[in-house]
Amino acid sequence: MPHIQFPEGLPGIRGPLAFSPATTRPLCEFVDVLLRGSNSLTPAEREMIATYVSSENDCYYCETCHGSTAAQQLGGSDADYELISQIKSNYEATAISGKMKALLAIAGKVQRGGKQVTTDDVHRAQQNGATDKEIHDTVLIAAAFCMFNRYVDGLATWQPDDPEVYREIGRQTAELGYAGRDWKQPLKAVASK
Amino acid sequence: MPHIQFPEGLPGIRGPLAFSPATTRPLCEFVDVLLRGSNSLTPAEREMIATYVSSENDCYYCETCHGSTAAQQLGGSDADYELISQIKSNYEATAISGKMKALLAIAGKVQRGGKQVTTDDVHRAQQNGATDKEIHDTVLIAAAFCMFNRYVDGLATWQPDDPEVYREIGRQTAELGYAGRDWKQPLKAVASK
Repeated sequence: MPHIQFPEGLPGIRGPLAFSPATTRPLCEFVDVLLRGSNSLTPAEREMIATYVSSENDCYYCETCHGSTAAQQLGGSDADYELISQIKSNYEATAISGKMKALLAIAGKVQRGGKQVTTDDVHRAQQNGATDKEIHDTVLIAAAFCMFNRYVDGLATWQPDDPEVYREIGRQTAELGYAGRDWKQPLKAVASK
Repeated sequence: MPHIQFPEGLPGIRGPLAFSPATTRPLCEFVDVLLRGSNSLTPAEREMIATYVSSENDCYYCETCHGSTAAQQLGGSDADYELISQIKSNYEATAISGKMKALLAIAGKVQRGGKQVTTDDVHRAQQNGATDKEIHDTVLIAAAFCMFNRYVDGLATWQPDDPEVYREIGRQTAELGYAGRDWKQPLKAVASK
């Protein structure tokens, strides 16, 4: 049961987002530009970073929603979902680029604490072609999900376990993004259960 | 030395904020409403939560800036700075309210991980008069500073050690807040060194 009272039927972060519209508006604008704004990292690559950090923070709702969003942005096939699953368990062994592996290594350090990131981590990313902006954005995405994961789990929000709910969230987020949404609307896939 | 290149002379988070204006605008609007918007917790009480979490995350720049802001909001005397210092080392032994102690206990749990917050922690806050909004805001402030601290330290930003710099930052922030500021402007107290 959530620690405080949220509107009924809103899974995960949607309860807190509906509860606090004054903070939700800028927060969703922030995450929209961070994950979907113009960038040399694709939206799917940025969602992979968000997914990996959420997985390291053991936030089931966030890792499953953002993993599903990344998979949908890649095409939405079972193979896309399988790639995301492999990135969470051992990204070094996947077919993603050397640059993405180096950025995920930085993201993993940020998850454990900002001071964990070393100049060697940054050099590895630069040697694999990462720009200052890509390194900056990786650190900020990883840091932001250390916030979102704690917001979701720190209030003990309700987290559905039906995979179809997360497929629907991924489809919606890939299409609509984060800014300007009405978070009080129940999810169709949830409401129909 | 910072991991990536920032404009010269900008301490702590000001380098990244100047580097990335597209994320900075909504991020600063978010933290402004969270720490300074209309609320039953005073701005100083909210800055205390930010300060305590930053101290637990060992982020010298953030704990010193936000501690100084809280002290300035309380009046700016040496006793106000001393209270903030005591809150960081052992808030249970200070003269702050039972409600604030219970909220700081929740914030400390969020810092270690969202799932650490228990129903007992929440009941203690409620028994001390905390509302759902105050509990929500405490969790979100604590979560947000797990982001800001990682943003500052994950990029190895430059952090001055002159206490007068942090007094000046506290005075400026207490007066001007966070939204709509020009973060490319060097701090006067830093620029004159």
